[in-house]
Amino acid sequence: MATWQVVPAGQGAGLRLRRGQELRIIDPEGGQSGDLVAFSRDGRQRLSNGRTFDYGAKIYVSTGDVLWSDRSNPMLTIVSDQVGRHDFLYSACSLEMYRIQYGMTEYHANCTDNLCSALRELGIEPEPLPTPLNVFMNVDVAEDGRLVFAPPKSRAGDSIVLRAEMDLAIALASCPASTCNGGAPPKPLAFEIEAV
Amino acid sequence: MATWQVVPAGQGAGLRLRRGQELRIIDPEGGQSGDLVAFSRDGRQRLSNGRTFDYGAKIYVSTGDVLWSDRSNPMLTIVSDQVGRHDFLYSACSLEMYRIQYGMTEYHANCTDNLCSALRELGIEPEPLPTPLNVFMNVDVAEDGRLVFAPPKSRAGDSIVLRAEMDLAIALASCPASTCNGGAPPKPLAFEIEAV
Repeated sequence: MATWQVVPAGQGAGLRLRRGQELRIIDPEGGQSGDLVAFSRDGRQRLSNGRTFDYGAKIYVSTGDVLWSDRSNPMLTIVSDQVGRHDFLYSACSLEMYRIQYGMTEYHANCTDNLCSALRELGIEPEPLPTPLNVFMNVDVAEDGRLVFAPPKSRAGDSIVLRAEMDLAIALASCPASTCNGGAPPKPLAFEIEAV
Repeated sequence: MATWQVVPAGQGAGLRLRRGQELRIIDPEGGQSGDLVAFSRDGRQRLSNGRTFDYGAKIYVSTGDVLWSDRSNPMLTIVSDQVGRHDFLYSACSLEMYRIQYGMTEYHANCTDNLCSALRELGIEPEPLPTPLNVFMNVDVAEDGRLVFAPPKSRAGDSIVLRAEMDLAIALASCPASTCNGGAPPKPLAFEIEAV
């Protein structure tokens, strides 16, 4: 556990992975959603939920599933998953979203800014930001297509491990929205990079 | 009907809408899926399924629903819809997709190329291309998240009408894939712009 790097509550972090390395994302306290976006090292390919839906023929991803780039190359494979439910539908929360949905008038921490800042620190121009894999975020799709947030299923210490299928720049954020965190204030996430 | 502009089978077309104008997209023969992407006139805002899912709290859109930009501004409102089922999950089909899923080795017409060409003719740099609204495309989401193609529900002459909420550059393609067209070869689509 000494190797964990902490993503503070409601903040973001950037990291690089070489092909073959594994990224473990941990929910230390449980019940916290995170946003993950991935770019190829040169910034020209980005994570694509649409391609992943197409090639996987499903909207929920878990162990064994591949996350594809918008150029139809495998970026990440989920090699283990103690939670089993993640959302890949919702855009990262943004300042505009807090204004529209929460009536905020002041600045509010948001995943879009946190992810973009982390990527720019890695030398990646992030915009337009792709839809993140919302790790641990629990969104149900009703038969009529209605989307309903449920609390994340992650318990304290649960994790998901993703293997890099190409050299990657990654940003990870602890989502500051309450709706996707069971109504609770945001909590930290953590990660470690495992050389395999 | 004399005002219809035809999008030939498996091809694409570009058009501009001023705020308040309405775009009617028609399936003249029935059973044909189309891909629609929208950019703000200056090319800086693009259609966003993730924002639309978030603000609408559903994955299926029909009459009365707003399609949002990635900057959280309304782009289009669906003002009428004779079909009632459209997909907003799948990326536009691409050359790589035909190689991976169909084993094609030669060039194959694809919506990504058709949409990008149409947008470039309008002076819009389309990449990275956002997920299109796949008009008339009928994708079911099973309870476990599996995605299943069904034939489009559109009958000959059915249409959907979208009102521009800002000045827009739009590309529309008749999808050449058989899987989303009930196994049939592609057919034309048509559109008309209605000044209101």
